[in-house]
Amino acid sequence: MRIGLMTSGGDCPGLNAVIRGAVLHGIKSFGHEFVGFRDGWRGVVEGDIMELPRQSVRGLAREGGTILGTSRTNPFDGPHGGPENIAKVLESNNIDAVIAIGGEGTLAGAKRLADAGLPVVGVPKTIDNDLQATDYTFGFDTAVSIATDAMDRIRTTGESHHRCMVAEVMGRHVGWIALHSGMAAGAHAILIPEFRESMEQVSEWVREVHDRGRSPLVVVAEGFIPDDREEAIAGKGVEASGRPRLGGIGEFVTQEIERITGIETRNTILGHIQRGGAPTGFDRVLATRLGIAAVTMVTDQEWGKMCALHGTDVVRVDFSAALDGLKAVPQDRYDEAKELFGR
Amino acid sequence: MRIGLMTSGGDCPGLNAVIRGAVLHGIKSFGHEFVGFRDGWRGVVEGDIMELPRQSVRGLAREGGTILGTSRTNPFDGPHGGPENIAKVLESNNIDAVIAIGGEGTLAGAKRLADAGLPVVGVPKTIDNDLQATDYTFGFDTAVSIATDAMDRIRTTGESHHRCMVAEVMGRHVGWIALHSGMAAGAHAILIPEFRESMEQVSEWVREVHDRGRSPLVVVAEGFIPDDREEAIAGKGVEASGRPRLGGIGEFVTQEIERITGIETRNTILGHIQRGGAPTGFDRVLATRLGIAAVTMVTDQEWGKMCALHGTDVVRVDFSAALDGLKAVPQDRYDEAKELFGR
Amino acid sequence: MRIGLMTSGGDCPGLNAVIRGAVLHGIKSFGHEFVGFRDGWRGVVEGDIMELPRQSVRGLAREGGTILGTSRTNPFDGPHGGPENIAKVLESNNIDAVIAIGGEGTLAGAKRLADAGLPVVGVPKTIDNDLQATDYTFGFDTAVSIATDAMDRIRTTGESHHRCMVAEVMGRHVGWIALHSGMAAGAHAILIPEFRESMEQVSEWVREVHDRGRSPLVVVAEGFIPDDREEAIAGKGVEASGRPRLGGIGEFVTQEIERITGIETRNTILGHIQRGGAPTGFDRVLATRLGIAAVTMVTDQEWGKMCALHGTDVVRVDFSAALDGLKAVPQDRYDEAKELFGR
Amino acid sequence: MRIGLMTSGGDCPGLNAVIRGAVLHGIKSFGHEFVGFRDGWRGVVEGDIMELPRQSVRGLAREGGTILGTSRTNPFDGPHGGPENIAKVLESNNIDAVIAIGGEGTLAGAKRLADAGLPVVGVPKTIDNDLQATDYTFGFDTAVSIATDAMDRIRTTGESHHRCMVAEVMGRHVGWIALHSGMAAGAHAILIPEFRESMEQVSEWVREVHDRGRSPLVVVAEGFIPDDREEAIAGKGVEASGRPRLGGIGEFVTQEIERITGIETRNTILGHIQRGGAPTGFDRVLATRLGIAAVTMVTDQEWGKMCALHGTDVVRVDFSAALDGLKAVPQDRYDEAKELFGR
Repeated sequence: MRIGLMTSGGDCPGLNAVIRGAVLHGIKSFGHEFVGFRDGWRGVVEGDIMELPRQSVRGLAREGGTILGTSRTNPFDGPHGGPENIAKVLESNNIDAVIAIGGEGTLAGAKRLADAGLPVVGVPKTIDNDLQATDYTFGFDTAVSIATDAMDRIRTTGESHHRCMVAEVMGRHVGWIALHSGMAAGAHAILIPEFRESMEQVSEWVREVHDRGRSPLVVVAEGFIPDDREEAIAGKGVEASGRPRLGGIGEFVTQEIERITGIETRNTILGHIQRGGAPTGFDRVLATRLGIAAVTMVTDQEWGKMCALHGTDVVRVDFSAALDGLKAVPQDRYDEAKELFGR
Repeated sequence: MRIGLMTSGGDCPGLNAVIRGAVLHGIKSFGHEFVGFRDGWRGVVEGDIMELPRQSVRGLAREGGTILGTSRTNPFDGPHGGPENIAKVLESNNIDAVIAIGGEGTLAGAKRLADAGLPVVGVPKTIDNDLQATDYTFGFDTAVSIATDAMDRIRTTGESHHRCMVAEVMGRHVGWIALHSGMAAGAHAILIPEFRESMEQVSEWVREVHDRGRSPLVVVAEGFIPDDREEAIAGKGVEASGRPRLGGIGEFVTQEIERITGIETRNTILGHIQRGGAPTGFDRVLATRLGIAAVTMVTDQEWGKMCALHGTDVVRVDFSAALDGLKAVPQDRYDEAKELFGR
Repeated sequence: MRIGLMTSGGDCPGLNAVIRGAVLHGIKSFGHEFVGFRDGWRGVVEGDIMELPRQSVRGLAREGGTILGTSRTNPFDGPHGGPENIAKVLESNNIDAVIAIGGEGTLAGAKRLADAGLPVVGVPKTIDNDLQATDYTFGFDTAVSIATDAMDRIRTTGESHHRCMVAEVMGRHVGWIALHSGMAAGAHAILIPEFRESMEQVSEWVREVHDRGRSPLVVVAEGFIPDDREEAIAGKGVEASGRPRLGGIGEFVTQEIERITGIETRNTILGHIQRGGAPTGFDRVLATRLGIAAVTMVTDQEWGKMCALHGTDVVRVDFSAALDGLKAVPQDRYDEAKELFGR
Repeated sequence: MRIGLMTSGGDCPGLNAVIRGAVLHGIKSFGHEFVGFRDGWRGVVEGDIMELPRQSVRGLAREGGTILGTSRTNPFDGPHGGPENIAKVLESNNIDAVIAIGGEGTLAGAKRLADAGLPVVGVPKTIDNDLQATDYTFGFDTAVSIATDAMDRIRTTGESHHRCMVAEVMGRHVGWIALHSGMAAGAHAILIPEFRESMEQVSEWVREVHDRGRSPLVVVAEGFIPDDREEAIAGKGVEASGRPRLGGIGEFVTQEIERITGIETRNTILGHIQRGGAPTGFDRVLATRLGIAAVTMVTDQEWGKMCALHGTDVVRVDFSAALDGLKAVPQDRYDEAKELFGR
């Protein structure tokens, strides 16, 4: 078979390891050929492809990013989008199957194509760990690792200056990165989109810690919405949605803590460093296994499915299982973390 | 309640995070008091204890090692060992429960004490990831991470000198560290205790890679036994058990590859660096959660059980479930890794 | 002698290593006693001190921050400031000498006190490496190391998305961190306070790189002022000083590049992570040596001097030599770096 | 001009950064062309060359190893060695100059060729930092950084088990890596080739530390020779040279400490990980600057010289200056470090 790989959506450490695992396994075990579509669905829709011989994946397990490029193109948009055009592209390039590596949007697109009869399988990818039907996705562990290292550094400055330090991490819709990196770094409050807290409560946790002579660390996910948003809107320029209007939620939380407690407080936005660079060992192993599994799934012609991690096993699940809403941090995990707030 | 914590067996990143999680959770949620036994079972048997107030666990999430110290003392040995003496020690120190943090040996001891009626629960600890009944143990991810980094470094030297590089990693009885770090680093052969390979076969993988102009990387666990051990014994000084007599298996594999292929080959023994230092984010989160769970288990008086990781959940399992032989690398995981050998 | 140590100004990796080097050397070689002033000059002025026995500096070589705390208090301000009050504080605490560890402001204060007859020596500290009379200061290498790592990560995201990536690093007055981390990371433009460049020129470098199919990386120090600041002011809200009004210079450069070139561009502000956490080996060695040298200088009663790095030697220089303006990046070092711009 | 680059001797982080700096600078500023000789002097003698266009050095600043390969071939050996043959190779390949990047042996060869009238300049390279006439060489800082990280890890295991930990680092003839990494890691004894110490003295330092309840860390360079070598030879199998016969000096030191003190002691050999992988920011900057400087030196036709680091300046020195014996650790630097032994 001649198999096309594509990576779509935001950059994520481990994408290259998936590609390498798929290509090495497919060539050795089944004699498949591989091509890559350039820049996600754009390459699929436009038939922009590159050959992927074995030597092209050399050394890729430890490389961040994706050699195929990525984009946020929608495969159904534009004059050339949609299943019929894509079927023609596959046919004219003699491509027998597509492995779509991406997050919720990508997999939703893959599902529609598979439903239309195209030979498509998926590999779940989200740095936010917000996909259903898989315990973890690659990239998440790397992001947690980077954020944890950064917080370890920020803390020493906090202690030296007796400041409260705020770290804003990724997570627009779910708080997994904040939850794990905050727990790992020993944060005194973790603020995530799934659970509202008032700035008074956050300040109370901060004050408890400061009163014991320590430097409080507050981790806040991008999508956190303070509980007392009406007052916040009145005083501080928060959007009707509850999200602060200017400067990001980290800046808002920082200013509010300082205003309420009088404790000098500083914000750090971790930003793009969370999603680039060499993957952790955990993510390289997971990504490699998923690449291998995806090729086996293609060989078995199990269209419309993606591979996923259940415990320590890589299994196959229907696209629909992964697309049933985002995987949010559940109450019990938040309560567990909350045990350590203010401590 | 007044709860005694103890850490036993080999050092493992995350021990301090367990202690911190337990103490912070126990004090805040239940008003428990905590003490630590010094140096594993020795401290239990001898009643050598230290108080563990909240401030004693400050900043411990990111510290390697164990502030309690550890040893390989057997709680049933010596004039003062055994359940009766230990019961007296607990009583005279007003200790209501023991949380034993350790590997197979430690948990076997804990089980015997619990069977004798003592209030004991366990937290599984093994850097080798060889315990049944839990998906992972803390320390393992850190060891894999360190070994992966080391191999990333070793490889560039191999490429510059056109050498074959051998890396010997921990794993006397099981090959999990070798399997994961080898897969993460893109090793061309992974040799583990669970599966025999002949040195001819290993050399064949090495030769394939070298012939393509690359530098082969071979990862070998301490406990690997070559398949052709009779010949090996004859020629090279291997013990009757199949283990090489001098210099470790890494040295043996190195010499054999060089002898068979004629390719310059170098050995690196990663040794103690694999088990020390700051835990990864993954291990800090796992260890913290287990510490929290252990205290809840004590509060519920669920003696004779340990907490464990199933998927993303922390659950309770009987000691006996964890003690049913070591968790070896299964055939399918080895086959999966083998897909990439010689590639 | 009884010697008081104090750390002042912004946090900097290596402060604790200076303290450790001074205390261990002073106790062993000369039988000195040590105390620490809490929070910089505040502790000196208020006589807020802590004893520093040998065990208090245990393990400090690798710890970021300062166990003494720090502040930006001016020793001449307030009712209790000034040499007479400080002399009384020293006398009443039986302190025979002060080792002031800090940057330009701290050393200027130390000089005034030494000029007034107080027994004060200095250890230069600036993460920005902007002090005259010393080749390097500790903390700088750590900041460069952290920034370089961050840029390595940012680049892979840039390549995957075909974006231009901007990284804003510390450096209000001098561009050393930007120069070194930018050169280390292979940046395509490095923008520093010492040299103006027009945004047209920067965009030209970016375009050259992008046209060759690569992802441009632009490093900008906080204090960079664009050459075409009049236009910038007109269009974009730049202060009369030339510094952008909102969102920092990184944000301004990002928006201008995107506006001029049409290339998608993203900004990352490294912020506080640059100055916290474990020092590099280089900084630990330098800081330890300076701590040792400062104590020898005190023992020799060489007041009014600081220790400094010349080549590989630690030497003594007058405070005045270090206070003769900031050490800016010279033309030839900028030209050297510029060789690689747009490449 | 058409310039040939070659890298020779042991692998060293920063080689690729030199190559990149030279090629980018030479193409942009002077319109030079570049080729690489494969595998050190072998490629020079045999005329085995590869073109080095600009794109071939893409991303090389952060890559360990050398894309040119390396070997320990002597350019004067064999039927094709020597200046006359090499002159012919250069002529037939239209190569106008050679930049030789290597250590003492390589530069000695380069000197002989330059003395014979060949257009050769040098770039100093030694991970051991043992070359005269330059403050530092690239690769050294990376080795120190890796060794320091490893020791930070080893220490926590030592503390948990109350063991003495020994770390054997590179340094056959000089002890710079041991000196710097040992000082950075807070070692309690640093044993280097330049200074003999008796095992009784070493054990005394170990005992002092252990008696204070700490875990001693001993760093030993490969080439250390114990002072009491006669007894050592008698009892333990040390060569007449004073070097232990079996298992390396680290193993010898470990056994002797355990024998003399009775304290459980463990050895770790850092080995090849010290010389591979991504260079530190410091080494990338130094290597890049040297690459740029070497090309300028070629353009100026300053044959027979190498570039070197003096303070913060890159200067030109005669080969002979670098070849006047190895740069050993001087007495005052050892005394300075010794201040902290046993502390």
